[in-house]
Amino acid sequence: MGSDSPFLLAGVSLLSALHMGYLARRVGRSRMAHKVLPPSVTGPPEFERTFRAHQNCVEFYPLFLVTMWTCGMFCSEVVAAVGGLVYMIARQVYFNGYVKSSKKRLPGFYLTLVVFATLSLLAIIGILRGVLHEYFHIHL
Amino acid sequence: MGSDSPFLLAGVSLLSALHMGYLARRVGRSRMAHKVLPPSVTGPPEFERTFRAHQNCVEFYPLFLVTMWTCGMFCSEVVAAVGGLVYMIARQVYFNGYVKSSKKRLPGFYLTLVVFATLSLLAIIGILRGVLHEYFHIHL
Amino acid sequence: MGSDSPFLLAGVSLLSALHMGYLARRVGRSRMAHKVLPPSVTGPPEFERTFRAHQNCVEFYPLFLVTMWTCGMFCSEVVAAVGGLVYMIARQVYFNGYVKSSKKRLPGFYLTLVVFATLSLLAIIGILRGVLHEYFHIHL
Repeated sequence: MGSDSPFLLAGVSLLSALHMGYLARRVGRSRMAHKVLPPSVTGPPEFERTFRAHQNCVEFYPLFLVTMWTCGMFCSEVVAAVGGLVYMIARQVYFNGYVKSSKKRLPGFYLTLVVFATLSLLAIIGILRGVLHEYFHIHL
Repeated sequence: MGSDSPFLLAGVSLLSALHMGYLARRVGRSRMAHKVLPPSVTGPPEFERTFRAHQNCVEFYPLFLVTMWTCGMFCSEVVAAVGGLVYMIARQVYFNGYVKSSKKRLPGFYLTLVVFATLSLLAIIGILRGVLHEYFHIHL
Repeated sequence: MGSDSPFLLAGVSLLSALHMGYLARRVGRSRMAHKVLPPSVTGPPEFERTFRAHQNCVEFYPLFLVTMWTCGMFCSEVVAAVGGLVYMIARQVYFNGYVKSSKKRLPGFYLTLVVFATLSLLAIIGILRGVLHEYFHIHL
């Protein structure tokens, strides 16, 4: 492990939680702008795209936390933290694009997938190395 | 860090997971009471409010876990655990209120925001202090 | 705690995150097959069941992570990791069943509940033992 106290991972996690809170706030503002009262989640296309953009971020958020933390704890904390920051940017690009049109969500989404692939691959390498070391006494 | 083994954070996390399971059960019971068969999520207003109350809890649950754990690991475990218990109460008040009417969801929701603000602020202070200490050798 | 570096819990968490990514992909493929364009989430019954199957997995995923990790850190890492693998199988059975019909979601869902009950119970035992030891100096 890189550090006893993973300040960077904790800091990026907290930032990402605040970012998710900001995106939830954006949905609330879109509700007001388009007069879509809770509990309704249907309305003008722009509201529905905003709502769905946020839902997609919600669906993937725990996956992001798991891949960033496993990458950070078992491979490299700095790389994982940078990956986390790129993920937040990708999600903001995705969200802003999706609000404009369904097609404009794609660039941000593809960047999201690149971050997931990178973090997951590094995490798998780190965990396999750890398992081989711990349970099979093979040192790489 | 407060403790080597964060029993309080783990205990409150587990309680909060069971609480979320209970709220999911409430949606299931509302389905039966209003005869809304899966996969449908539309029906009488009370069912739709119950469904959306649960969805909102789901959306914020990972954010809650991140803020409570970062506050607990880098600032104060006891304060974070107490904050976690208050969050659960706030969510129950929110849920019960939302089931009755959209307006009655607000007191519980505002209490939720107060808990988020408090836990986040303490977590930020703790993490910044840690980063200054670890990476810049500044001791506060 | 079982191990200083919880490789098994981290490995199963990462696998479960990849599994969740696979289920999200299944919803995307169902969108294409049934020509349901984002942001719409309504369409033919099979698409709506596929969408809701994934949503249910999303709702429970953070609860799964909390119960597996608290069980693994405070009771038994091996049992928690095995429980995590069974949970993934249960979710796949649930998802495949739900895609076919609403009724066929039930066997997988009941298995999911069995895993939750087992992991939660072991976690509660482990945490209570820890709290008694740490705060009340009672050794069981």
